[in-house]
Amino acid sequence: MATVPLVSDEEASAEVLAVFDDIRQVRGTEYVNNFWRALANDPALLRATWERLKQVMGPGALDPLTKEMIYVAVSTANSCEYCVHSHTTAAKAKGMSPEQHGELLAVIGMAMQTNGIATGLQVPVDDVFKASP
Amino acid sequence: MATVPLVSDEEASAEVLAVFDDIRQVRGTEYVNNFWRALANDPALLRATWERLKQVMGPGALDPLTKEMIYVAVSTANSCEYCVHSHTTAAKAKGMSPEQHGELLAVIGMAMQTNGIATGLQVPVDDVFKASP
Amino acid sequence: MATVPLVSDEEASAEVLAVFDDIRQVRGTEYVNNFWRALANDPALLRATWERLKQVMGPGALDPLTKEMIYVAVSTANSCEYCVHSHTTAAKAKGMSPEQHGELLAVIGMAMQTNGIATGLQVPVDDVFKASP
Amino acid sequence: MATVPLVSDEEASAEVLAVFDDIRQVRGTEYVNNFWRALANDPALLRATWERLKQVMGPGALDPLTKEMIYVAVSTANSCEYCVHSHTTAAKAKGMSPEQHGELLAVIGMAMQTNGIATGLQVPVDDVFKASP
Amino acid sequence: MATVPLVSDEEASAEVLAVFDDIRQVRGTEYVNNFWRALANDPALLRATWERLKQVMGPGALDPLTKEMIYVAVSTANSCEYCVHSHTTAAKAKGMSPEQHGELLAVIGMAMQTNGIATGLQVPVDDVFKASP
Amino acid sequence: MATVPLVSDEEASAEVLAVFDDIRQVRGTEYVNNFWRALANDPALLRATWERLKQVMGPGALDPLTKEMIYVAVSTANSCEYCVHSHTTAAKAKGMSPEQHGELLAVIGMAMQTNGIATGLQVPVDDVFKASP
Repeated sequence: MATVPLVSDEEASAEVLAVFDDIRQVRGTEYVNNFWRALANDPALLRATWERLKQVMGPGALDPLTKEMIYVAVSTANSCEYCVHSHTTAAKAKGMSPEQHGELLAVIGMAMQTNGIATGLQVPVDDVFKASP
Repeated sequence: MATVPLVSDEEASAEVLAVFDDIRQVRGTEYVNNFWRALANDPALLRATWERLKQVMGPGALDPLTKEMIYVAVSTANSCEYCVHSHTTAAKAKGMSPEQHGELLAVIGMAMQTNGIATGLQVPVDDVFKASP
Repeated sequence: MATVPLVSDEEASAEVLAVFDDIRQVRGTEYVNNFWRALANDPALLRATWERLKQVMGPGALDPLTKEMIYVAVSTANSCEYCVHSHTTAAKAKGMSPEQHGELLAVIGMAMQTNGIATGLQVPVDDVFKASP
Repeated sequence: MATVPLVSDEEASAEVLAVFDDIRQVRGTEYVNNFWRALANDPALLRATWERLKQVMGPGALDPLTKEMIYVAVSTANSCEYCVHSHTTAAKAKGMSPEQHGELLAVIGMAMQTNGIATGLQVPVDDVFKASP
Repeated sequence: MATVPLVSDEEASAEVLAVFDDIRQVRGTEYVNNFWRALANDPALLRATWERLKQVMGPGALDPLTKEMIYVAVSTANSCEYCVHSHTTAAKAKGMSPEQHGELLAVIGMAMQTNGIATGLQVPVDDVFKASP
Repeated sequence: MATVPLVSDEEASAEVLAVFDDIRQVRGTEYVNNFWRALANDPALLRATWERLKQVMGPGALDPLTKEMIYVAVSTANSCEYCVHSHTTAAKAKGMSPEQHGELLAVIGMAMQTNGIATGLQVPVDDVFKASP
């Protein structure tokens, strides 16, 4: 159903298999999900995307669960069905409770609502909100 | 520049002033920002939006700073200039460090990127991502 | 500030002026707004857009004010600053009252909110909502 | 297929059932659609969303059918598959004729088109469109 | 599954059949895809959309393949599942190679990423980017 | 006006200056635009974004001008004011003629229009559009 074939392990080149193996090791699972198998049609794009994702989503000033919830929020606003599913699953795996999931959805809904109202009203940005140069 | 006039304290009805006063008290500041002054043209919409925002953004299973960062993420994906400014300011006021701000932007950028790639590839959702009925 | 120059009456070709004149006549005003002056850099696109707009936005099974409010709703969801301003002005000119404007914004906000929640939940479409083939 | 289980009547708490019952009564049907069954995983969010929807979508300065069409317009611009289906169904139930549906789609298409062109041209907002402060 | 029935050749009016026939002739195939069969519920909208599409997507200052890739890019950013599928198919039919498809996706992903970062940072537009008036 | 200060050459760290210098050399100009100066608040994000952009936008299976036009298309659909300005300027610098610019806008407008109509109709994807697995 994708616009490209999904690449199985058998069809994968050595370059692609190396990325698949790194995904498996970092995540501690044998399962490589469809996003990477579709992306594998372009090995360079596969590698660049995975390397960057690994770096961005690791621990830092924000914890991995917070990052996953931000990812879900963006994916929801962009109506990316695949991304909502995969990153909601990831957030649950990283400990998101049903209560946290409910609040995540409530904040997304609230933000969408006031995004619409503020844009519809074309409210001018307050001077106090502008960062000093 | 808004599509409606901004309502000053002098022009505000008692109903509107009551909401403005609650905003001032909850936030501990005299300043009422333009969003509420624009919304005040419809007192019922003003009250409903403020009451809901107060409830959703308060402490719960997620802390207020995490909620503000999720709010910024949604507002960014929706290109709401006003909301990005006001909620980035709010996140800073709630303690978001420059490092956290940088990681927030990195996650937003990463999510936008893979949203585009997953949608462009029309990757089918893996069965393992679907919640049991 | 546009990505192209705005075309004044003096700079306009005969082909462009003919469209400007039709805009003036249909709208009963001398004023030609910036959208058309920017679009005039491509006379064929100017003509095709104006001819189609005139046809779509005229009276039909929906009245012109309802059409303008739908236009504002789409433009808001798409964060088109120019379009929100121009079509809110047009809706007011066609009789939109402050109460109607407030309800329009309330519906936009409600729709945005449930759009976010339904997408975040990935709610499957009920069979009863699907039109018969 | 949702990111949460759908809550059946049998699984519903008393708090959830009370909302389901109100939905049934207000709409005059036994059927409770999937959106509410998914939302029922967070009873507080379920109640707040339903109470607000009931208020916003009822008769007022705009009639219920006009509101539904505005809802469809926003949902379409936001690519919310579920919302397009459910609110198109609701609009038909409130009397939207095939001719009105066709014009709704034509206006949505026209707005999307000029949203893209105006944003691509970055047309500056005319002074005459700005509401007086 | 559409919000309207798909119109078969047998059900089509003479006006609709004339458009279907033109689609067949221009594209050199007997197959009329679902978009046109859904649109056929409003014959005037069907004709206007097809006539405009035929004109816009034909050869000009940009070649047809470049136009198709731009179409895919917009459709991806707007999360239009149908449009991503149909225009990716069209781009392949017009000669898009797997390498070009990969680069198209890489550019879409890059643009989405910096769209998010630039909007999140609210970067002011440089004076040098503004076209002279 | 940004949500962060713009970093001048004087304020820049050695790490940031090294990226600025590479931007200057690759582009053959002394001018470093605001996007990079805002991004410089997070040197790691600055470097990663620039390195990736340089790689993605260089010549390959698609020529640089085609890539810039695709970039403009995505940025327009996402309503990124900054990105539309900067990448339209870049496209002109790479040789986009006024005729090509007009056709780019016409294709964007056409795609937006049919995106809205296809989503509003919820047209099911034709089997013939689905790539073989």
